[in-house]
Amino acid sequence: MALIVQKYGGSSVANAQRVANVAKRIIETYQQGNQVVVILSAQGDTTDDLIEKAGEISKNPSKREMDMLLSSGEQISVALMAMAIAEQGFQAISLTGQQVGIHTDNVHSHARIEEVAADRVRKELDFGKIVIVAGFQGMNDNGDITTLGRGGSDTTAVALAAALEADLCEIYTDVDGVYTADPRIVANARKLKDVSFDEMLELASLGARVLHNRSVELAKKYNVNLVVRSSLNQNEGTLVKEVTDLEKMMIKGVAYDKDIARISVMAVRDIPGVAHKIFSLLADADINVDIILQSIGRGDTKDISFTISRSQLTDTVDLINRNLEYIGAKEVSFTHDVAKISIVGAGMANHPGVAATMFKALAEADINIHMISTSEIKISCLVHSDEVEKAVEAIHESFELGTK
Amino acid sequence: MALIVQKYGGSSVANAQRVANVAKRIIETYQQGNQVVVILSAQGDTTDDLIEKAGEISKNPSKREMDMLLSSGEQISVALMAMAIAEQGFQAISLTGQQVGIHTDNVHSHARIEEVAADRVRKELDFGKIVIVAGFQGMNDNGDITTLGRGGSDTTAVALAAALEADLCEIYTDVDGVYTADPRIVANARKLKDVSFDEMLELASLGARVLHNRSVELAKKYNVNLVVRSSLNQNEGTLVKEVTDLEKMMIKGVAYDKDIARISVMAVRDIPGVAHKIFSLLADADINVDIILQSIGRGDTKDISFTISRSQLTDTVDLINRNLEYIGAKEVSFTHDVAKISIVGAGMANHPGVAATMFKALAEADINIHMISTSEIKISCLVHSDEVEKAVEAIHESFELGTK
Repeated sequence: MALIVQKYGGSSVANAQRVANVAKRIIETYQQGNQVVVILSAQGDTTDDLIEKAGEISKNPSKREMDMLLSSGEQISVALMAMAIAEQGFQAISLTGQQVGIHTDNVHSHARIEEVAADRVRKELDFGKIVIVAGFQGMNDNGDITTLGRGGSDTTAVALAAALEADLCEIYTDVDGVYTADPRIVANARKLKDVSFDEMLELASLGARVLHNRSVELAKKYNVNLVVRSSLNQNEGTLVKEVTDLEKMMIKGVAYDKDIARISVMAVRDIPGVAHKIFSLLADADINVDIILQSIGRGDTKDISFTISRSQLTDTVDLINRNLEYIGAKEVSFTHDVAKISIVGAGMANHPGVAATMFKALAEADINIHMISTSEIKISCLVHSDEVEKAVEAIHESFELGTK
Repeated sequence: MALIVQKYGGSSVANAQRVANVAKRIIETYQQGNQVVVILSAQGDTTDDLIEKAGEISKNPSKREMDMLLSSGEQISVALMAMAIAEQGFQAISLTGQQVGIHTDNVHSHARIEEVAADRVRKELDFGKIVIVAGFQGMNDNGDITTLGRGGSDTTAVALAAALEADLCEIYTDVDGVYTADPRIVANARKLKDVSFDEMLELASLGARVLHNRSVELAKKYNVNLVVRSSLNQNEGTLVKEVTDLEKMMIKGVAYDKDIARISVMAVRDIPGVAHKIFSLLADADINVDIILQSIGRGDTKDISFTISRSQLTDTVDLINRNLEYIGAKEVSFTHDVAKISIVGAGMANHPGVAATMFKALAEADINIHMISTSEIKISCLVHSDEVEKAVEAIHESFELGTK
């Protein structure tokens, strides 16, 4: 008898009909002789509606109270799912994060899981019940409700799978799995049979928004067998697992991210401590930086460029401008007309031809590269945002990803 | 420094504006130098909306899951209220029934409070915070969420007032307090300054739906100072307290209840055990009986009449008809064109003129009495439902309740 953890997102449980469909799917897994633990997000727009309610009352509500408010959304969906399963003749029980024993730190709205005391879940499984757990939420040492922030339900699923030593953790989404490129752009994009944790981490952070990074990190740490698959069909998904053969080079996919803006701080003095000043300022203002590039010094100055989320562009430019003197820079330039294209694959570092192939594909498609950044398992290029689709197609073709 | 418990109903917190108004009122009490604990119901139609959601999924959802579902409603209103108070510059914290430590029995949807461990509330009060508690909910020994059923938030308020040894428990409603009669019927109905627990119990069960009986019983048991007042104005409400002078007769008010149907089981044999058969049948079918009257035997038969809630009339008649032989009765007669008029007042039993005055008032108004039932502190008459208003006015006038 295997123990399977399944996670379904908010759109999969948006209304009574969808809840009933997912219930059927859960029951199928149970009838195949498995113990089943299900993690759910809040229904459809519930979370947004609750945020709106709070917004009518306070411009800056306490994070503790927001957690109290928002966690009610998952509580609703788990209760409804337990009813739907019972309606189809099977025993189910819903549990809140608190009831499961998902202990977190005290950082409301972005809590991290510290411990999962899954005794209650085990007990209910032993009774033969299907256990439905509210995702996204936990409890701190005061017994206060916390929420886990973006991707929280994925994280709940993986953490619970780790605590229960589950045989499999299935993340159900509206796509079939992880693809070599966005199928909406590249017609012959191919679904990957498997991908390593590290590759998945790069893909996720590069905009292939299938799995949230926190859950992948957790799965890697506890070696949880993770599968991404669609709740709309029975297709096999993509298995995310420990890497098997680091030496064997394989480009896993082409990812892109349009939610990007580039900022360059021009002509800073070429002395120690300048980068520290800039990025401390950004960190204090809670601005997440993605790629950082520093030019080689020209004379006694150099340029420092970085990318951030597009929504933070104005704030960031203001911040830098107010501190030009402190940083010791002349001026700041910026653009939001950029996008990031990346190829991801373990073993890339040992195959020098990879970068060249990517750059050649972009050159032949007449696409200018604004910035380049590399890691052990990925190469990212900044290009003009109008050229994203063309770039993804060209690179996907050049590595013959559709036919492998 | 006094400790005051306040309870506000669902319509008082139905939208952002009303939440802000109630927040202001709570803060006023706090600024007068009191510690304040507030119990809230779910906003406006939230509970009905959740019941509808469940109804779309299951015709007969598990009560445990209904409790899980419905308790989210109060969780939402307490979080919003804590935000609203913070927005006006004061410190507040919201707590669920579970976090407060409201321990109940295991009867989902109609749980009874067994113990209130109010340490967390006391701690937060000591920090100077206004404490906002989700009404209507508790937790059983399994850590599962339970709800208290009808009037649950009133019950939460009184139980918490008892546990905290609060100086006062204020129940805010949309009326000014307890009246000598329904002000919509009797123009000179007078608001009572005070009323005893027992009188309030009779008034509540007789249809003066201001306070739920469970909360009054609890208040009586723990001698909680209870005040019923309006959240819409600053008028003094009605104090519900221990009776002070039982000998002094005083009619407190005229109550009526239109949600009534009368059933008579005719010509049952005048032998022991017949009433037991009838009312066991009803109890097993979960039908609540109010007044029961048995005629004096005529020859070897007698009639047994009783009143029930109007919505249960069809089911009850069916039930009796199916069991006529078992009961040993000839036939069943029934009507829903009746209403119950009652006068309530401690010490009534020692003042023989009271019943006569009531009957005289009805006679002079040409109103026929169908049934009469009396207790230590009340006299109830069944009259035709079209004559309710006339009856209430006549009785109110005959006891000069408007001018006392």
